[in-house]
Amino acid sequence: MPSVIAEDSVGIVNSQIYSHTQPFTLQCGTTLPSYELVYETYGALNENKSNAILICHALSGHHHAAGYHSMDEHKPGWWDTCIGPNKPIDTNLFYVVSVNNLGGCHGSTGPLTLDPETQKFYGPSFPSVLVRDWVVSQSHLADHLGIHKFAAIVGGSLGGMQALQWTIDFPERVHAALLIACAAKLSAQNIAFNEIARQAITTDPNFFAGRYVENSVKPSQGLMLARMIGHVTYLSDDGMRDRFGRELKSGDLSSGGGVEFQVESYLHYQGRAFSKHFDANTYVLMTKALDYFDPARETGDDLVATLAPVKAKFLVLSFSSDWRFPVDRSREIVNALIEARKNVAAAEIESDQGHDSFLLPIERYVRILRSYLIRVAGEVGK
Amino acid sequence: MPSVIAEDSVGIVNSQIYSHTQPFTLQCGTTLPSYELVYETYGALNENKSNAILICHALSGHHHAAGYHSMDEHKPGWWDTCIGPNKPIDTNLFYVVSVNNLGGCHGSTGPLTLDPETQKFYGPSFPSVLVRDWVVSQSHLADHLGIHKFAAIVGGSLGGMQALQWTIDFPERVHAALLIACAAKLSAQNIAFNEIARQAITTDPNFFAGRYVENSVKPSQGLMLARMIGHVTYLSDDGMRDRFGRELKSGDLSSGGGVEFQVESYLHYQGRAFSKHFDANTYVLMTKALDYFDPARETGDDLVATLAPVKAKFLVLSFSSDWRFPVDRSREIVNALIEARKNVAAAEIESDQGHDSFLLPIERYVRILRSYLIRVAGEVGK
Repeated sequence: MPSVIAEDSVGIVNSQIYSHTQPFTLQCGTTLPSYELVYETYGALNENKSNAILICHALSGHHHAAGYHSMDEHKPGWWDTCIGPNKPIDTNLFYVVSVNNLGGCHGSTGPLTLDPETQKFYGPSFPSVLVRDWVVSQSHLADHLGIHKFAAIVGGSLGGMQALQWTIDFPERVHAALLIACAAKLSAQNIAFNEIARQAITTDPNFFAGRYVENSVKPSQGLMLARMIGHVTYLSDDGMRDRFGRELKSGDLSSGGGVEFQVESYLHYQGRAFSKHFDANTYVLMTKALDYFDPARETGDDLVATLAPVKAKFLVLSFSSDWRFPVDRSREIVNALIEARKNVAAAEIESDQGHDSFLLPIERYVRILRSYLIRVAGEVGK
Repeated sequence: MPSVIAEDSVGIVNSQIYSHTQPFTLQCGTTLPSYELVYETYGALNENKSNAILICHALSGHHHAAGYHSMDEHKPGWWDTCIGPNKPIDTNLFYVVSVNNLGGCHGSTGPLTLDPETQKFYGPSFPSVLVRDWVVSQSHLADHLGIHKFAAIVGGSLGGMQALQWTIDFPERVHAALLIACAAKLSAQNIAFNEIARQAITTDPNFFAGRYVENSVKPSQGLMLARMIGHVTYLSDDGMRDRFGRELKSGDLSSGGGVEFQVESYLHYQGRAFSKHFDANTYVLMTKALDYFDPARETGDDLVATLAPVKAKFLVLSFSSDWRFPVDRSREIVNALIEARKNVAAAEIESDQGHDSFLLPIERYVRILRSYLIRVAGEVGK
């Protein structure tokens, strides 16, 4: 709970709901009769409606990116380090829109929503959602807000994939795309870790083929395991060594009695906490969207050709110790953008915090973000 | 099934049992009233009993390292690429002893053994076993075989840790230690992956707090998950890219329908196969032995001091793409050995096969192994 809200916080924020009352046909062919997106905004939209930034969230993220919902809230939004007055994503300059994706579990239509046709929870019958579907649904929200073109679309990890897809599907609607710690497609290793997480969830005896809500249980063990796997891959070997080393929480290594390492205790805590507030069907759905993202597939794996129609300018950032989305994956995007003769700036940030770096206030990182966006503000008009 | 046994195979082999009929007190303080070790030997012991090589196995290994148990056996022993006449561990020169560790599930006394005191399966009550205990029990087997000093003790991964512990605890009994893809202690990341595997096993509803045998079930899902996690960490990102890429076994990425990637199918197969022949309590026990191994802890984290009494010569090998036991971990051992003024040779082998490289017939690797051991044969007398 914040006793005093800091000057560079967006303060107390309220979530809003966008209701799309028209049918929406997804890439998989299924039509949702309607849907809702929960979102937040920070800062003010200017008269030309040219200063909007869209924040796209990652696997476990949601719309609450900055500020507090109330004075009782324990922690601010998930990207509060970067969003606020005078912060890199400066709410004095920009109107920031942050949305919970379709299929999410924080208020947008998803597995926890009642299917209007059956009056049962969608649960596992919620249709497959692809990154492209998210982008289209976000464009509907933009229409609703009167935003024709975003000054910037910003995302880390899976969020960066959405920003990239935006530039391909709506070239006229993106001034700048900021792709942070992402990739043009997942590697086999990435898919493997996601599949292990899904296996952990779907083989939990409380999963009930996704119908756990009706059975008044939660596949908490499976979700906990999934999160522990994810969490280890978001950190780096060096970062974990510095933070935990081989410190013991209890026990004696020389006899092997009652040993618990600090790192074990930490992962249990993180896994348990996550399993309390996240929905298992959403986790499965979002990891699949990650796995299936592969925009260059349609042009025979030619990313340069895929990017040909793109009009946005790009900032591509990656982190030295990120092994889930290594700097090489960002370089592939940068190289393809250069070959496609696009406007691209890129930086590889030194950090030992792994994939999680994109959420942390690393000095060079936030300085680059801020500088780039100040230039964008100049280009689009405050 | 081998239709013809190759000339460089040790051929049909039989397992033997060593029965230790005296009580054996483990590091944890518990005393086993007796124990058995199952082992195999390949080649002939010379008159001086100076040409014996001990093979120490890794997490999921066992005593059957080379040859076939029968003409019906589908695959040869797990290190058949390296053990045999004219192979790197040359049975024309050496008498090779390969043992299943105490606590194992392939014939040595372990959780699947009846506790003579209670006449129940040990199961989860099998005492905690440390690397040091394995080394002592292996020394009892050596006594039984009349081997005072091994020409070489060879191990990859957890096997390398046993070889290292041998040189510390029995300096007079090891001529050469070959440490392959190992480390002087696990990192926080390593421990984290092991703990996730243990969680997967122990939270399987068929685990029954380790009493699954009495309940006539197996925690197969948990073991399968544990193996999938392990398997991904034994491969490299590049190796998986080359082998699986984003190839689909079924489905359509552009709609997200019925998608299964080849890498998912492969991991399911590997996990299921492993869960059929491995014991869950043994997996938990062995991962803990890995986690707890830390010989330098007794000298205040001073590996040089720990190695001071060592008399063996060393060959230390590591693989460029091994991120579970990276080359840096081997360098720590090499540097400590140099500073402790020991005889050490080392090589870092280029390979994109990750930690699993130590099991593969990589040309430079097997050439170095063979050359080194031919020199050892000259030193100890054939």
